[in-house]
Amino acid sequence: MSSLEVHAPDGVGEVHVDADLVALALSVLDLRDGDVLLVTSKVVAKAEGRQREQARDDAVAEETVRVVARRGPTRIVRTRHGLTLAAAGVDASNVTAGSVVLLPLDPDASARRLREGVRAACGANVAVVVTDTAGRAWRDGQTDIAVGAAGLRVLDDHAGRVDSYGNELAVTAPAVADEIAGAAELAQGKLGARPFARLRGRADLVLAVGDDGPGAAGVLRAPARDMFGFGAREAVVAALAAGVEESELRDGFGAPSSPADLADALATVLAAPVLIDAEGARELDGAPVVQVVVHLDDPALHVTALDALARAFRWTWHASGAEVRFSPDVP
Amino acid sequence: MSSLEVHAPDGVGEVHVDADLVALALSVLDLRDGDVLLVTSKVVAKAEGRQREQARDDAVAEETVRVVARRGPTRIVRTRHGLTLAAAGVDASNVTAGSVVLLPLDPDASARRLREGVRAACGANVAVVVTDTAGRAWRDGQTDIAVGAAGLRVLDDHAGRVDSYGNELAVTAPAVADEIAGAAELAQGKLGARPFARLRGRADLVLAVGDDGPGAAGVLRAPARDMFGFGAREAVVAALAAGVEESELRDGFGAPSSPADLADALATVLAAPVLIDAEGARELDGAPVVQVVVHLDDPALHVTALDALARAFRWTWHASGAEVRFSPDVP
Repeated sequence: MSSLEVHAPDGVGEVHVDADLVALALSVLDLRDGDVLLVTSKVVAKAEGRQREQARDDAVAEETVRVVARRGPTRIVRTRHGLTLAAAGVDASNVTAGSVVLLPLDPDASARRLREGVRAACGANVAVVVTDTAGRAWRDGQTDIAVGAAGLRVLDDHAGRVDSYGNELAVTAPAVADEIAGAAELAQGKLGARPFARLRGRADLVLAVGDDGPGAAGVLRAPARDMFGFGAREAVVAALAAGVEESELRDGFGAPSSPADLADALATVLAAPVLIDAEGARELDGAPVVQVVVHLDDPALHVTALDALARAFRWTWHASGAEVRFSPDVP
Repeated sequence: MSSLEVHAPDGVGEVHVDADLVALALSVLDLRDGDVLLVTSKVVAKAEGRQREQARDDAVAEETVRVVARRGPTRIVRTRHGLTLAAAGVDASNVTAGSVVLLPLDPDASARRLREGVRAACGANVAVVVTDTAGRAWRDGQTDIAVGAAGLRVLDDHAGRVDSYGNELAVTAPAVADEIAGAAELAQGKLGARPFARLRGRADLVLAVGDDGPGAAGVLRAPARDMFGFGAREAVVAALAAGVEESELRDGFGAPSSPADLADALATVLAAPVLIDAEGARELDGAPVVQVVVHLDDPALHVTALDALARAFRWTWHASGAEVRFSPDVP
């Protein structure tokens, strides 16, 4: 039996600038080695003086590195922290009307200070997670996520581990920092009365004293691996404006010398799997591909798509019957 | 103090076709009114005979409605259920080598059957959540989400509620079904030994007997509101293949009669906020806009972008100094 407890105490009053969050947390929670202390970014930001009498749009612009997607009033942006959040995490709820609260300047640093503070105050080795509320790409509603962390194994990486059948769990890395933040939200609610929570039962995720781990920054996907860095519409507009045929697309698909890349591109354009007859991809050992042959039921249906790809890869294509033959442009 | 408990018992053996999941769950968990019973989609699928001796790629193709994004070996797809999952949720872990497990045919129906079964077996009015593991667009690692649900308020919609400062929590709707699934994963782990979990402490989310609620389908974002229905690269390729200037882009930006749409489009293309001088947007009361004036420091820098937009909206544009004047094409 594995068990978890999440407690979110009431009785925390309004948090003001320079409030002692460690003292506040310990006044309502007892903490032991192996506990995870959760704090909403809202009160961390308030304590750090990030509340402003400022127009929301100005605050959002200030926190925004670039716009990821917009639709009507909704603006999803990449923040200074590398987070992807509606309105850059700028919040006008649970604050006096007319003012806004920005995210902490460095939530991982805030978490580290809180962890050190708890250790100094009561000797407990806890992990700290600073939480905020985020929407998701394909699902309605929001879940709380970790925007700051200290002393926590944020990704419970199973790479190399095997299940009871001996299958390697290669791609499994539970984002436990975010699951913990979501669990805390279930106990804290959204009305602002419970800024602190304690999760007990996963001491295995708490790092040794002196090791703060990667922080919540360790959960951010690197731009190079981010397939959704722009909304679908924004990607198209940006590509058009940049004259995509000449650059973006080819770069997007990587080196034009790989039959796998071409199959990828074709599959994407045709929205169907594409079989490259193994014989069809000819390389001169290790040298760039000199020819790729693809079989399509009716190439004539896909002339526009094949043209776009050939342009992107700087390849030419010729179809005879169901056989489509791609070759690199001769310079 | 608001408290939650999550228990994930060991001692559940291998689950075979036609296994009685209700009996299995009750053999390791006591359930009361207001509890949430969580079950991994894996064992639900096994009990429903969704394990196959089949090549993984074939199974994925079978479950895929369309490809959302691909990069190398990674294929993120929209499944029959409307879920957006890597490899369509087809899983080769925690199964005998060489076989795969597909998602249940109708996970919400599976959850409803389990809820009814628990009620019949022990009289308890519980909610049931069928969980699976999903990646996220902008964050590394995976969290468990609800792919099936019965008797649960899946979105804890705060619309209309006010915080303690009297601000309306208009856009806040915690996706509690997913937060509950993630909390369960923290107790269950990924090694397959704990397919069941019980969450106690949010009886307020459990619906009355006879009301199964919207199910996990209620958490799926409607395609019309999905800004990330294609990967950035896939969107560009698809748009090119479709000859985007003629259709996609204009449709994407909605009616060309709205100055807000135009500002949106410009801001996206220029990756910068755009000010439409209020005087500049002229409508003949309620009738389509007849003219929009935008101010840019140097319109000459943005000719390509302005052309793309004018094409998309079927507008023409003329710049004099910093003033850019858009007018609808005269048919």
